[in-house]
Amino acid sequence: APGAARPDVTAALTRGVARLFAELGLAPLAEFRLPNGRRADLAGLDRAGRLVFAEIKSCQADFEADAKWTDYLGYCDAFYFAVGRDFPAGLLPAGEGLILADAFGGAIMRAAPERPLAPARRRALTLRFARQAAARALGAGADGDVGGGLL
Amino acid sequence: APGAARPDVTAALTRGVARLFAELGLAPLAEFRLPNGRRADLAGLDRAGRLVFAEIKSCQADFEADAKWTDYLGYCDAFYFAVGRDFPAGLLPAGEGLILADAFGGAIMRAAPERPLAPARRRALTLRFARQAAARALGAGADGDVGGGLL
Repeated sequence: APGAARPDVTAALTRGVARLFAELGLAPLAEFRLPNGRRADLAGLDRAGRLVFAEIKSCQADFEADAKWTDYLGYCDAFYFAVGRDFPAGLLPAGEGLILADAFGGAIMRAAPERPLAPARRRALTLRFARQAAARALGAGADGDVGGGLL
Repeated sequence: APGAARPDVTAALTRGVARLFAELGLAPLAEFRLPNGRRADLAGLDRAGRLVFAEIKSCQADFEADAKWTDYLGYCDAFYFAVGRDFPAGLLPAGEGLILADAFGGAIMRAAPERPLAPARRRALTLRFARQAAARALGAGADGDVGGGLL
């Protein structure tokens, strides 16, 4: 196991990518639960309804342990791997988007291919995003006693 | 002006109605900004995408100052007034829904008529709800420095 505390690295990168998303006009939601049981590390929803995912990889081992990243592709319009400066980016699939991030921000190094969602799935995912974000807003706010078990 | 601190009453009732919404399976979002510039005191979105509003009235003066509550009707499937036990409920329009609330919960006293949203507007409102809720979740959480000016 690597020496660094990887959950901390993931949290820092998530924060940086969330900032990038906000700059790009994507309202960011971490740990977005999908209908297939997986969680997208960071999901972003723009004003036009476009849904973008970023999958944070804290280190090579983290990437290699995830054989199923293709499971995300059917649930977003664009998919990015997001890694730190020390990640060997050459390991990542060249056909997918790439974000380089740190705790304070990020930059798109390679644009993701656009794979537009079908309308019915887009509607279902937008609703799911809305309900999870509302539960998160409650849980994080003063009303932490409300809605914890809602979704 | 009434002696009681009405903003506190509104905040308490909002909390109670948010609990009721959560019990009813409606993910609650306070201060939902609408395309017409108004804000719904509390919006709730259920698993099927049904959008319910509750307009909190802290006292008779609060209700009488709001000549434009009908502006909300075109942006939700069901509309409720929500008031406390001391509110003269007979003043409220008999054709609209009524919730009786306190700081800890609420109950539907009169069901709201269902006025289903047109599909395009429902999609637009769900997306709007999703983005506002995500911004709220960020603002309320540890990443208060992110996304404040996003939406």
